[in-house]
Amino acid sequence: MALVNRLLMTGAAGGIGKQIREGLRDFATHLRLSDIADLGVAGPGEELVDCDITDAEALRALVKGCDAILHFGGISTEDRADLIHRINIEGSYHLYEAARKEGARRILFASSNHVTGFHPRETRLTASSPIRPDSNYGVSKAYGEALARLYWDKYGVETLIVRIGSCFPEPKDRRMMATWMSAGDMLRLIERMLAAPRLGCPIVYGVSDNDESWWDNSEAAYLGWRPKDSSRQFAGMFDHLPPENPTDPAVVWQGGGFAKAGHFDD
Amino acid sequence: MALVNRLLMTGAAGGIGKQIREGLRDFATHLRLSDIADLGVAGPGEELVDCDITDAEALRALVKGCDAILHFGGISTEDRADLIHRINIEGSYHLYEAARKEGARRILFASSNHVTGFHPRETRLTASSPIRPDSNYGVSKAYGEALARLYWDKYGVETLIVRIGSCFPEPKDRRMMATWMSAGDMLRLIERMLAAPRLGCPIVYGVSDNDESWWDNSEAAYLGWRPKDSSRQFAGMFDHLPPENPTDPAVVWQGGGFAKAGHFDD
Amino acid sequence: MALVNRLLMTGAAGGIGKQIREGLRDFATHLRLSDIADLGVAGPGEELVDCDITDAEALRALVKGCDAILHFGGISTEDRADLIHRINIEGSYHLYEAARKEGARRILFASSNHVTGFHPRETRLTASSPIRPDSNYGVSKAYGEALARLYWDKYGVETLIVRIGSCFPEPKDRRMMATWMSAGDMLRLIERMLAAPRLGCPIVYGVSDNDESWWDNSEAAYLGWRPKDSSRQFAGMFDHLPPENPTDPAVVWQGGGFAKAGHFDD
Amino acid sequence: MALVNRLLMTGAAGGIGKQIREGLRDFATHLRLSDIADLGVAGPGEELVDCDITDAEALRALVKGCDAILHFGGISTEDRADLIHRINIEGSYHLYEAARKEGARRILFASSNHVTGFHPRETRLTASSPIRPDSNYGVSKAYGEALARLYWDKYGVETLIVRIGSCFPEPKDRRMMATWMSAGDMLRLIERMLAAPRLGCPIVYGVSDNDESWWDNSEAAYLGWRPKDSSRQFAGMFDHLPPENPTDPAVVWQGGGFAKAGHFDD
Amino acid sequence: MALVNRLLMTGAAGGIGKQIREGLRDFATHLRLSDIADLGVAGPGEELVDCDITDAEALRALVKGCDAILHFGGISTEDRADLIHRINIEGSYHLYEAARKEGARRILFASSNHVTGFHPRETRLTASSPIRPDSNYGVSKAYGEALARLYWDKYGVETLIVRIGSCFPEPKDRRMMATWMSAGDMLRLIERMLAAPRLGCPIVYGVSDNDESWWDNSEAAYLGWRPKDSSRQFAGMFDHLPPENPTDPAVVWQGGGFAKAGHFDD
Amino acid sequence: MALVNRLLMTGAAGGIGKQIREGLRDFATHLRLSDIADLGVAGPGEELVDCDITDAEALRALVKGCDAILHFGGISTEDRADLIHRINIEGSYHLYEAARKEGARRILFASSNHVTGFHPRETRLTASSPIRPDSNYGVSKAYGEALARLYWDKYGVETLIVRIGSCFPEPKDRRMMATWMSAGDMLRLIERMLAAPRLGCPIVYGVSDNDESWWDNSEAAYLGWRPKDSSRQFAGMFDHLPPENPTDPAVVWQGGGFAKAGHFDD
Repeated sequence: MALVNRLLMTGAAGGIGKQIREGLRDFATHLRLSDIADLGVAGPGEELVDCDITDAEALRALVKGCDAILHFGGISTEDRADLIHRINIEGSYHLYEAARKEGARRILFASSNHVTGFHPRETRLTASSPIRPDSNYGVSKAYGEALARLYWDKYGVETLIVRIGSCFPEPKDRRMMATWMSAGDMLRLIERMLAAPRLGCPIVYGVSDNDESWWDNSEAAYLGWRPKDSSRQFAGMFDHLPPENPTDPAVVWQGGGFAKAGHFDD
Repeated sequence: MALVNRLLMTGAAGGIGKQIREGLRDFATHLRLSDIADLGVAGPGEELVDCDITDAEALRALVKGCDAILHFGGISTEDRADLIHRINIEGSYHLYEAARKEGARRILFASSNHVTGFHPRETRLTASSPIRPDSNYGVSKAYGEALARLYWDKYGVETLIVRIGSCFPEPKDRRMMATWMSAGDMLRLIERMLAAPRLGCPIVYGVSDNDESWWDNSEAAYLGWRPKDSSRQFAGMFDHLPPENPTDPAVVWQGGGFAKAGHFDD
Repeated sequence: MALVNRLLMTGAAGGIGKQIREGLRDFATHLRLSDIADLGVAGPGEELVDCDITDAEALRALVKGCDAILHFGGISTEDRADLIHRINIEGSYHLYEAARKEGARRILFASSNHVTGFHPRETRLTASSPIRPDSNYGVSKAYGEALARLYWDKYGVETLIVRIGSCFPEPKDRRMMATWMSAGDMLRLIERMLAAPRLGCPIVYGVSDNDESWWDNSEAAYLGWRPKDSSRQFAGMFDHLPPENPTDPAVVWQGGGFAKAGHFDD
Repeated sequence: MALVNRLLMTGAAGGIGKQIREGLRDFATHLRLSDIADLGVAGPGEELVDCDITDAEALRALVKGCDAILHFGGISTEDRADLIHRINIEGSYHLYEAARKEGARRILFASSNHVTGFHPRETRLTASSPIRPDSNYGVSKAYGEALARLYWDKYGVETLIVRIGSCFPEPKDRRMMATWMSAGDMLRLIERMLAAPRLGCPIVYGVSDNDESWWDNSEAAYLGWRPKDSSRQFAGMFDHLPPENPTDPAVVWQGGGFAKAGHFDD
Repeated sequence: MALVNRLLMTGAAGGIGKQIREGLRDFATHLRLSDIADLGVAGPGEELVDCDITDAEALRALVKGCDAILHFGGISTEDRADLIHRINIEGSYHLYEAARKEGARRILFASSNHVTGFHPRETRLTASSPIRPDSNYGVSKAYGEALARLYWDKYGVETLIVRIGSCFPEPKDRRMMATWMSAGDMLRLIERMLAAPRLGCPIVYGVSDNDESWWDNSEAAYLGWRPKDSSRQFAGMFDHLPPENPTDPAVVWQGGGFAKAGHFDD
Repeated sequence: MALVNRLLMTGAAGGIGKQIREGLRDFATHLRLSDIADLGVAGPGEELVDCDITDAEALRALVKGCDAILHFGGISTEDRADLIHRINIEGSYHLYEAARKEGARRILFASSNHVTGFHPRETRLTASSPIRPDSNYGVSKAYGEALARLYWDKYGVETLIVRIGSCFPEPKDRRMMATWMSAGDMLRLIERMLAAPRLGCPIVYGVSDNDESWWDNSEAAYLGWRPKDSSRQFAGMFDHLPPENPTDPAVVWQGGGFAKAGHFDD
């Protein structure tokens, strides 16, 4: 049975969008998908909208009539600062304004583990751990999380903040054995977000039940989400590689290569 | 093999008493059952006693010869203040006095999640979370918990304080998907209480291994109790109902309807 | 300038009442004083009322027209359990009901350090430390604290819970060097309670700025209360006594003699 | 003796800039002051620069040759979202880039208590408390704090993040009795920032030693800053006003009127 | 595939050494085993060395060429203080010096739950709980843990500190139902230690997934170790014994008989 | 008035011993002073003993008849490992054995801030912070602290563990502005140790009330010790020196030069 009438996903042509698009159909009567990239052909119940999230007017029209929003749109890696500002910061602001004005009451904000990427791997993080962004990208996600909290405290718009680890079909490197999130676990998390009697504004690390684990989601156990997949199905995948150096910044910090990299615009 | 010789259960004709009565037989050679309501016919090893827990003399006679006590007697919902005071507060006091004088060293005190019902659902509680009762009933259970602790610190009487969620054959509403406790898990908890080398005076939330979870019992992991049932067997049971309003006080607060209700005596 | 129009103090003929009565006159236009013991002659602005706090009707009349209440009435030491139940538990309940019905919005509840008297002296306590009563008296105060919290969460009645140390003109024994509270500091605390824009329901240990200190009131720093007196003015007062035994229960536990004592009714 | 050679203050014509300008002269051989508003006549050792912080080129020239920066420039209250984004967010980014490229190693970032304004007054905050902005202005300061932390973790630029309370010559309303910061205490804090052997990237609430206190700066005690002034010199200043309503959102939340206000752009 | 080229185990003829020797072969191309007791016949890939760990020179030769060290050598129970000092303290120092000088970068230090044996069973411990040794043996392990940390912070030698519970083929008494660790879980832990990209210097309680649990290893979840065995396979093994006395010091304290025992040298 | 009859100070010819020797006379009827260095001429009430703390027999004779011990003897800086082991580790063990056997019930153990010297300066430490020694010397003090705790938990010997900062007549470098402890504050701490009704086994950082502060002693506030001196009397003393480099290991870590130094025996 559908959990909501009309569900919007921004960034639907992106890496995560493609993985979960089909699975989302069970959750809503109407699934509105938007992106600036090609979305292909509309499936049953799908509405495809070409929308640039930096266009406040277009965004408001996009949001109109939607009960809930999965906001995966925007830049999902380090990039030029001016683009990060325009797309991730101003874009997120326009989205929240659209939601407030159009009465969309529940949002998934696709944040990132790079909001806390400058913590050492030995430090176990919770939703209350200090912000330690590892990139301008991470800083923009810290902005979005603060914005989401404001819209909850002041306007009653609920947000599930997901600090996504690595949501790919399979881990691409050794680090992702710890950070991998399956599409199935993402879908189950979205189901809980839509079904919860009260969502509030929790912060959840988006990660499967991997053996290596840096993050503790127990503060959000009231949502009832329990990841069912695990990177242990990929055990041994990187055993042929030479051992990593424990003092390499990409190994020291949770953010991996993001923490190690220099300034993008240099 | 029996864990104790004679085990007393007060309130044996109540909702929980009926569910666990049969299962208790394995734990004790003699099972003494008391209530003011009809207890039916005595089964093998059972001793049935008609006893009013507001009668200190009768209570002392009831406790005499018992090694351990499961104190489920008293009022288990909001009610008139004068009854709450007489039955839950004075009654509990008489029970602890009887235990102290008669040498019963181990007690299960049936407390309630309503001792902390005015915490929001987003707050994960432990045994150390602040008391926030949602009713006069909840306040009376806070009294009982304080009393139990005194009898442990001063007189060495051990108590397992169980803040029971919703111990019914099945959840009765959406909220109970989070608070439900099976009779089987209650019995396994009682088994651990009776078998533990050292009980002390722990506080445990009485709840099964439900997906939605508000309470963290890890402080009492030394008891070795792991719930085996889960409300997920009832998944979808309330899907036909309209979505709940996240700002309804009965949804905001853990205590649900208890927190929302006005004053009983008005 | 008066902070409230009419201020009620119950237990006004008691030890603390006598010490602060005169100082309270500055805080209110009308000072209503009640007790079952003789209150002497009414001073300027004083209204004397002979009232038994176990009489709910009389209590409601007493509270009528009062803006704030200092509830010092009741038993202030260990005593017979039946008296503790009738006076401290039922009496407190009647007082809160009177306040709720008559619209008195702010209450000082005279709780006691004996609510946490079974903590060792080496343990530094805050408002969040677990309840560990050292006596039936302490248990009755735990009841009152839980009740006060309920009336704040459900009915918006604000309470300043004061876990009073030893409020006497001077320390009476070695232990009171740590627990002493001057009448002046009590008065300053009451002034802050009456003047605070928002009181809420804080727990404050009532103790002066003594060198020896077991309690940390920083959680309530928003009240703006800073004790100005200190037991160091009595330094050396007990030096002529032989050293105390560090394993004496009255020295081990914060509750002192209350923790050491056996059961009152035995 | 000067602590640094050349010290830059942005926003020098603003409210705080005017109060501390004279006092800063002792800390640096050269004091560079910038604003878009009129800075008056240069005093001894002062360099006045008309600079718009949204102009990255100009900002880099401004920063060139400076050892440390006091970044008070930008919008210091709620305002239009587009201005907040351009001035506070992009402006702060340009400033940090200028510092990184020009080798200015130590920055004071003028953050605000409005970064955490949606905490209740009863909650005592530390540098580790969760972000709860009360306005778009507060969200922009959360961005700036995250940015500062990135520049410390990745590039070694040290920042003193000051969550300023109310830095005015005297409190303007009842709430400021708790949030007031004297210019003298601000100057002493800047002195410690410049003199500290190692600054790191601490978060400090900018507030004097007021009796009413919501914030605990002990995590930053390594700086050696101890405020010396207190709003108690203004005691009674607002006693002629009627009592505040404890359930008024401007009284419930630390952010006061910022938390209560609706959306600026509506 | 081997995780390291040459792996050294000291104390290889001891109780744990015997249980895991065979399993270790998979982890290393060469397995060097040392002890002062008889090591039997060398298996494939094994190198047997007769070495006294109090001999610094011999120890250095032993460590030469090894990539990682499992340091199980020394005294593993309470004993004469002079032996504890010479073997466990000076011996551990020599081992760490040998590792530093010979470039062995990763060590398992066999610490013991007796480092924290004077905590009550009701207290759930983590890696951050205070040291409370229950014996001179426990004090010597506290020394070793401090030493390991120094070698990590100063010299970059990584150590897995394992506070071993009871690593025997099966539990020997009631207490070991809580403290038992299977050889298989020890081997899996060693595998994680050798495979981890970054080990650091974590403290892990060496215990299987027993129902009764006193210890929380979640701080070290980044290692990816999840015990798979449990003492519940031995359920009922001690049911024929009389109930234990909850006030017996061997039952009160986690250290059991070690905490109860008097001084060894008396 | 004397607090004890006979008080022993080991290491009395050392740096701290010389500063406090005269002040100690008020605390005891007999002051026994020991060292291997010259102690000069005995003053009134003084007993001078030439004693090597590595001689267990001599140590026992030294302790005989003493009510309390100030154990300042041993090596107080980094040194050869074999000396550290023999003097600080075995020496401390012999001292505690002597105290246990001779019935000396209260000891001051001169520990050191170098037990936690590998914490960054920005980290505020308490008695519960993890051990992070910065030297073999620091490791030996960690041993002594663990030993002291054992003797309290098992044998009831009380110890005041003082992690001394820098107890010199005046700070010798910039770092000591934060770590300086006056002789007067040391004497006042010893007075509280001798006068406390119950000492237990607290850990206290030995430091005056300096503005720069890394350590929080509030857990031991029950002792009633409040330092009265401050390094602010030496303000400006090191202003003529060039600024320190915030990334110099001697500035990053609390242990200063101890943390920066290589291995002593190399």
